Amino acid sequence: MNITDISGVFASGCHSGIKASGGFDLAYVYVPGCVGSAIVQTQHAFRSPTCDHNASVFGQGPVALMVINSGNANTATGALGRDHVAQTVAAASRHFGVPVEAIGVASTGIIGVPLPVQKIVSGIATFSGTEKQGGDCLKAILTTDLVPKQASRTVMVGGQRVHMAGITKGSGMIAPNMATTLGFIVTDLALTSDECHRLLQPAIDASYNCLSVDTDSSTNDLVTLQSSGAVSVPLSDADWGVVQEALTALCVDLAKQIAKDGEGATHSIDVIVRGASTALEARQLAKQVVNSPLVKTAIAGNDPNWGRLVMAIGKGNHPGLKPDHLSIVINGHVIMANGQPVNGDRDAVRNAMAVPDVVIEIGVGDGAYESVAYGCDLTHGYIDINMAYN
Amino acid sequence: MNITDISGVFASGCHSGIKASGGFDLAYVYVPGCVGSAIVQTQHAFRSPTCDHNASVFGQGPVALMVINSGNANTATGALGRDHVAQTVAAASRHFGVPVEAIGVASTGIIGVPLPVQKIVSGIATFSGTEKQGGDCLKAILTTDLVPKQASRTVMVGGQRVHMAGITKGSGMIAPNMATTLGFIVTDLALTSDECHRLLQPAIDASYNCLSVDTDSSTNDLVTLQSSGAVSVPLSDADWGVVQEALTALCVDLAKQIAKDGEGATHSIDVIVRGASTALEARQLAKQVVNSPLVKTAIAGNDPNWGRLVMAIGKGNHPGLKPDHLSIVINGHVIMANGQPVNGDRDAVRNAMAVPDVVIEIGVGDGAYESVAYGCDLTHGYIDINMAYN
Repeated sequence: MNITDISGVFASGCHSGIKASGGFDLAYVYVPGCVGSAIVQTQHAFRSPTCDHNASVFGQGPVALMVINSGNANTATGALGRDHVAQTVAAASRHFGVPVEAIGVASTGIIGVPLPVQKIVSGIATFSGTEKQGGDCLKAILTTDLVPKQASRTVMVGGQRVHMAGITKGSGMIAPNMATTLGFIVTDLALTSDECHRLLQPAIDASYNCLSVDTDSSTNDLVTLQSSGAVSVPLSDADWGVVQEALTALCVDLAKQIAKDGEGATHSIDVIVRGASTALEARQLAKQVVNSPLVKTAIAGNDPNWGRLVMAIGKGNHPGLKPDHLSIVINGHVIMANGQPVNGDRDAVRNAMAVPDVVIEIGVGDGAYESVAYGCDLTHGYIDINMAYN
Repeated sequence: MNITDISGVFASGCHSGIKASGGFDLAYVYVPGCVGSAIVQTQHAFRSPTCDHNASVFGQGPVALMVINSGNANTATGALGRDHVAQTVAAASRHFGVPVEAIGVASTGIIGVPLPVQKIVSGIATFSGTEKQGGDCLKAILTTDLVPKQASRTVMVGGQRVHMAGITKGSGMIAPNMATTLGFIVTDLALTSDECHRLLQPAIDASYNCLSVDTDSSTNDLVTLQSSGAVSVPLSDADWGVVQEALTALCVDLAKQIAKDGEGATHSIDVIVRGASTALEARQLAKQVVNSPLVKTAIAGNDPNWGRLVMAIGKGNHPGLKPDHLSIVINGHVIMANGQPVNGDRDAVRNAMAVPDVVIEIGVGDGAYESVAYGCDLTHGYIDINMAYN
C-alpha cells in the first residue's frame, strides 16, 4: 500500500534540477482535508531553517501540505537559507491555494550550499495537486539510498478498517536524536493534531530513535504524521492501543529498512539487550554495541568475535554490569554464557552469520528491562561513498 | 632517550610464544629502588583481572616491577583469568626476588581466550632483571601497532637535571575512559606515590583522555608512572609546575603517536575548539568532531567538507551553540566564518590537507574555554584490519 492509496492523500515527485544526476528531487504530500498533524524533528544545534519553519506551523494547526526536496539540505546557509524557505512556502501557497501556515518544508542533501530556490519554485508549478503518484514522491526524497523505503498497516478500530502508510529515506548520517532522516506518514483515521503527536512521539522513540548507521546525526531530520480524517471513529482505550501498536510497528518497519540500506552495509544488525536494571541502561547498552566500529567490522567479516562484543557492552559508564552474568547469542548460537566463551563450532556460527540479518541477543543480568537497537555493519562501501561525497 | 636511559630503571622483552607470529610478546619494567608509583586504569565494566590486581598493589605502596604481555588480554576469562594473574605474579616474585605486593601486571591482545600462562612463566625465567634493553621492552608491548612509540623530557628542577621517559602502545580500540592503551613512564626524580598520582592524573586527562581512534575502549588500558628516586630534590611550587608541564607534554607526545598510528590511518587529526561556555562543552565538542565517521572519511579523501563539520559540531546536546558564530579553519585556511561557508579556493584547501597532519580549528562562540582532541581518519585500512582480526 502506497501513501496515495490512503483516502484523501495526494502526492507526486519530479526532477526540478537540483540533482545534477537528473534524478527526482522535488516532491509533495498533500492532505487537503487534513484534520490533524504532528512532527518530530532533529535536536541538532544547527538544524536547517526548514525545521524552524515547521516548528512554527505545526504548532498552529493541521499542516495539509509538505513540500520536500532532496539534493540540498538548505543548512548552514544563514539568512539566505531562511529566505529560501519563505520563497518555497510562498510559491506552494500560491500554486496549491493553501495558507502558508498549513505548509511544511523538508530538505535533505548537501549542507552549506545555497538552495537553488528558483528550480524549486519552477518545479512546484509542474504539480497539479491531485496526483496519486506516491511512488514518484517516494523516489524524489532519496539521496544516497539504494532502495526506496515504505511501509503500511491496516487495523480494525471500532469496527472500521483504518489505514496508515509511510515513506522514508536515509542511509548515512543516521543517528537519531529525537528523530532522524525524513519520514512522511499518512492515515485515514480522523485524529486531532494533539492525538497525532501523542501517537507519533512514542512510535519514534521505539523505532527511529533505536537506529544508528554511523552515529552521525542529520541537521534536517524529521518525521510527520498527517490525518486525512476520511475514517471517523470514536477511539476506546483498547482502540488507542491498537492504533499505537500499528503506528509503532510501521515506524519500526521503516527504520529497519533504513538500517538495511545503511551506506555500504552488507548486514543489518539487531542488538537486543535483556536483564538491564533500567530502561535507559538497556537502550544505552544496545546502542553502544550497534555503534561499535570494531563490532561492525567483525560482523562485516562474519566473525563471531565475542571479545569485541564484551568490549562494546562494557565500555560505557554502567558500573552495575556483572561480568559473570554476561551471555551472548548470535543468530541462535550461544557464544558466551556466565561471562565466559562457550566452546562451540566457530565455523557453524560463521555460516549462520553469512546472511543479510544478524541478531545479537545479550543478557546482562537479572534486571527487568530490555531494549533493541537497529544498525548495520561497516564495510569498504561506507568508506568509498564518504571519501568523495560532495 | 629510552626508558632504560633513566638511572635505576631496567627493562627488556622477549618472545615467550604467545604470538604465533614469533614477535616479542613478554616484557618487564623494573625499578628496584622505586620510591613512588601511580597508575591510571580503564573504567571498563569488564576490565581485565590484571586491572583488579593493579588497583590492589598500587594502593599498598610503590610498585617496583611491571610484567607485561601482548597477544592475549586475559579478559573475559573468568576465575581462570584471575588465577593466571596470580601465577604470573608468583613466578615474577620468585625470579626477581620482589614481593608480590610490589608487582603489577599488564596484558593486551585478544579478549576471551585463556592466557597461555606457562609460556609467560617460562619467559620470565629468561630475564636477568638487570637488562638495559628498553628497545626490546618497547617492541614486546605492541599488537597491531605499525611503529613503536616512545617519548622523553628533561627539565631543570632545583638546579638539577631531571629525566622522564615513557613508552606506549595502541592503534585500535582507542577511546579513553580515564586512561587508554598501555603506557609505562619512568623518572629519576624522587617522587612519593602520592606525588606520582597527583602528577599523572592531570597529565592523562590532557593527553590520553583527549584521544580517540575509533570510540571503542579497551578492557585493559593503563598508564603507570614509576620513580627510581635517583635524583632527590625538594620541589618548590614553581618546580612542581615545571615537572607537571613536562609530564603532560610527554603524555601528549605519546598520545599523538598513537593517533598517528591509528589502524589504517593516513592523517592524524587535531581538533581545537575555542570559545565554548564550559570546559566540559569544549572537550565534548572536540571529541564528537574527531569521532565523526563522516568527518573522518572526508579527511581521508582530503575533502574540506564544511557541511559534515557543521553536522558533527551540532549533533550533541549543546543547546547554547550559536549557528551564526561558527567559524572553521583547516590547516590555516578559513572555510567557514559567521556560520556560513567562505567562498575560497577549494583546490588550495584540498592541497593543504594532503599532508599527514590535519589541524581543524573551530570557533563556537565567545566563551572562555577551549579544548583539543586527537584522532585520525577512517580508511579502507581500518576495515581490512578489523574484518578479520582473530
